[in-house]
Amino acid sequence: MRNFDYCNPTRVIFGRGETDRVGKECRKIGRKVLWVFGGESIKKNGIYQRVEARLREEELEVFQLGGVKPNPRIDKVREGVALCKKEGIELVLAVGGGSVLDTGKIIAAGTCYAGDPWDFYIDNSKITSKIPLVTVLTLAATGSEMNHNAVITNEETGEKLGAKNPVLYPTVSILDPENTYTVPRDQTVNGIADMMAHVFEQYFHPVPETPLQDRWAEGLMKTIIEYTPRVLENPTDYDGRAVIMWCGTMALNHLLEEAGGGGEWTCHPIEHELSAAYDIAHGAGLAIVFPQWMKYVLDVIPHKFAQFAERVWDIPREGRDDYSLGLAGIERTKQWFQQIGAPVTLKEVGIGPERLEEMAERAVKRGKIGVTKVLGKEEVLEILKMSL
Amino acid sequence: MRNFDYCNPTRVIFGRGETDRVGKECRKIGRKVLWVFGGESIKKNGIYQRVEARLREEELEVFQLGGVKPNPRIDKVREGVALCKKEGIELVLAVGGGSVLDTGKIIAAGTCYAGDPWDFYIDNSKITSKIPLVTVLTLAATGSEMNHNAVITNEETGEKLGAKNPVLYPTVSILDPENTYTVPRDQTVNGIADMMAHVFEQYFHPVPETPLQDRWAEGLMKTIIEYTPRVLENPTDYDGRAVIMWCGTMALNHLLEEAGGGGEWTCHPIEHELSAAYDIAHGAGLAIVFPQWMKYVLDVIPHKFAQFAERVWDIPREGRDDYSLGLAGIERTKQWFQQIGAPVTLKEVGIGPERLEEMAERAVKRGKIGVTKVLGKEEVLEILKMSL
Repeated sequence: MRNFDYCNPTRVIFGRGETDRVGKECRKIGRKVLWVFGGESIKKNGIYQRVEARLREEELEVFQLGGVKPNPRIDKVREGVALCKKEGIELVLAVGGGSVLDTGKIIAAGTCYAGDPWDFYIDNSKITSKIPLVTVLTLAATGSEMNHNAVITNEETGEKLGAKNPVLYPTVSILDPENTYTVPRDQTVNGIADMMAHVFEQYFHPVPETPLQDRWAEGLMKTIIEYTPRVLENPTDYDGRAVIMWCGTMALNHLLEEAGGGGEWTCHPIEHELSAAYDIAHGAGLAIVFPQWMKYVLDVIPHKFAQFAERVWDIPREGRDDYSLGLAGIERTKQWFQQIGAPVTLKEVGIGPERLEEMAERAVKRGKIGVTKVLGKEEVLEILKMSL
Repeated sequence: MRNFDYCNPTRVIFGRGETDRVGKECRKIGRKVLWVFGGESIKKNGIYQRVEARLREEELEVFQLGGVKPNPRIDKVREGVALCKKEGIELVLAVGGGSVLDTGKIIAAGTCYAGDPWDFYIDNSKITSKIPLVTVLTLAATGSEMNHNAVITNEETGEKLGAKNPVLYPTVSILDPENTYTVPRDQTVNGIADMMAHVFEQYFHPVPETPLQDRWAEGLMKTIIEYTPRVLENPTDYDGRAVIMWCGTMALNHLLEEAGGGGEWTCHPIEHELSAAYDIAHGAGLAIVFPQWMKYVLDVIPHKFAQFAERVWDIPREGRDDYSLGLAGIERTKQWFQQIGAPVTLKEVGIGPERLEEMAERAVKRGKIGVTKVLGKEEVLEILKMSL
């Protein structure tokens, strides 16, 4: 086991009906609230009206910042920071999926920073404090509700980058599974692909003697696989939505990686270039890239892929060596993505070979990536070509 | 899934050599330290000298409170609280196993309380704040290093009780596996029995739809079973000690129960009466009582015991119904306790039938216990008789 330093101070309020606690939880912290949200969906499904009523009951002074988009932009963050500074906002309330929560995190941190919030993406250590952040999650996917990551896109520079700093943990996150009942099928699938990819990034590594973290990662994968059909067949299956939501949170709250292999985090930066260039869904991009990355690194850790095949997919060994068994596990993973309706080739999302070289170059712009195999531009390009 | 509210703010610093950070971590918090520890063992193995040197380097003003015993006493807590109040202590440093850490927790909370700290055991809600608590763990067992429990014995009343309150989470816990190299074999076994029992208390419950928490509990049990022979055969196997230490922490940091079944916690109060009356090791008492409790409740949740037999012990079903398969899992559990050298009958620890009735009565003194089966005095007595 590696040495590590872990502290996750986010308070999670989980369950049916807990959305109604949003007013009181905000009121405990302050009176002037910046309420960040996305598009029209929370108005259609009634979450907006419900949150608004609870905030009104507590007589909070609410400033709204709607219109956060998927692959959220730094411009929207800047707008929020300016509003917070001008109005003396005491806390940020983010109601939405990962894009909204990430935007809320960087607004909360940017409010305590004199410079431009994009600086955080040049140097994570410039994040030193934030105003409190309350979140109400409406999409099970990124784990942003209980982690210290925030991914933001800069349209001017064409970059989509992640910042990571313990300051960014939300203060309180309300996880009400009923808020995901109306998530459309394709977004549900993308969210599930995203959380599965988070587990992959933390499970496939060359670090020995991480048995508990391995088993917890396997437990997450098996549970996601078991419960995915339930939410796809019946979008209002409460326990189905609850289990998937909880898996999404546990898949990326840093527990697996800190006490495990420390995190591979290779396919995420590769995918970020896909979604920055083509604006495809993050989960879709990951479902495409991951099986190809797996094949690319299989020869370095065949024992881990064999363990994955046996424990997660229940594939019997039948005399095969680790490499062959591991390969069968990778094939099964790709089939599963197809089964649940995720794309597994770039072609399916309309991406051809034209810009692969450009994206490969950008993925390693700040240095080589990966742990199991260290990847430079040529290696990333090869994985992208395999994904066509 | 049940609704829940979870927040675990303890910072864990884990790994080889991290003991040396104790001085700086204390210094970040304050200058006047009450250092709580147990008997002579930390002087023999050098942990005392090492901690003392680090505290001296930071020029901390240190007040010592040694002599905390297993099944720690409220008198020692009172002594610590008086010292903290008199000297204006700013933080408590607890260096030891669960008994020392629990004593440190109640001293830290008692320092912020006007009345007698035993009041906390009459009414947990009287715990409202504490001075900061830093811990250095020297025994993998209770999980006290990352949870909000503290078990204390009152010799006057003959009671051994647990208090539970979010205030009691340690501020910082240093988990250095090398600090457990010198733990004797019987204490290592008792610690392992204790952590296994913690998982049992949170795994066997009638609440449906807790698939992730089930798999994580199973992952803990399988890892403990796999790594126990390593630490028994080679007490200085670093990764063996590290994995067992991490399992002990994860087995009781409230994550399994909050997002799971909410916790059974039946065998713990029964065992507390055994160790209060006879001063036996807590882990030993649990290894004796648990298999009998399992048999006693098997008919209520046979499916859970069947799942346990299949997933944890890899016992094939071979046409058996849940009850028979579950019974095989329970028998295997008892055999495992025997294999690792834990007692499985009261006779082995010198307890006869004489005081069973008295202990059964005391176990339910504050009301019936248990969830899977609610137990009154007669039911507890039956389980104790089965354990003879």
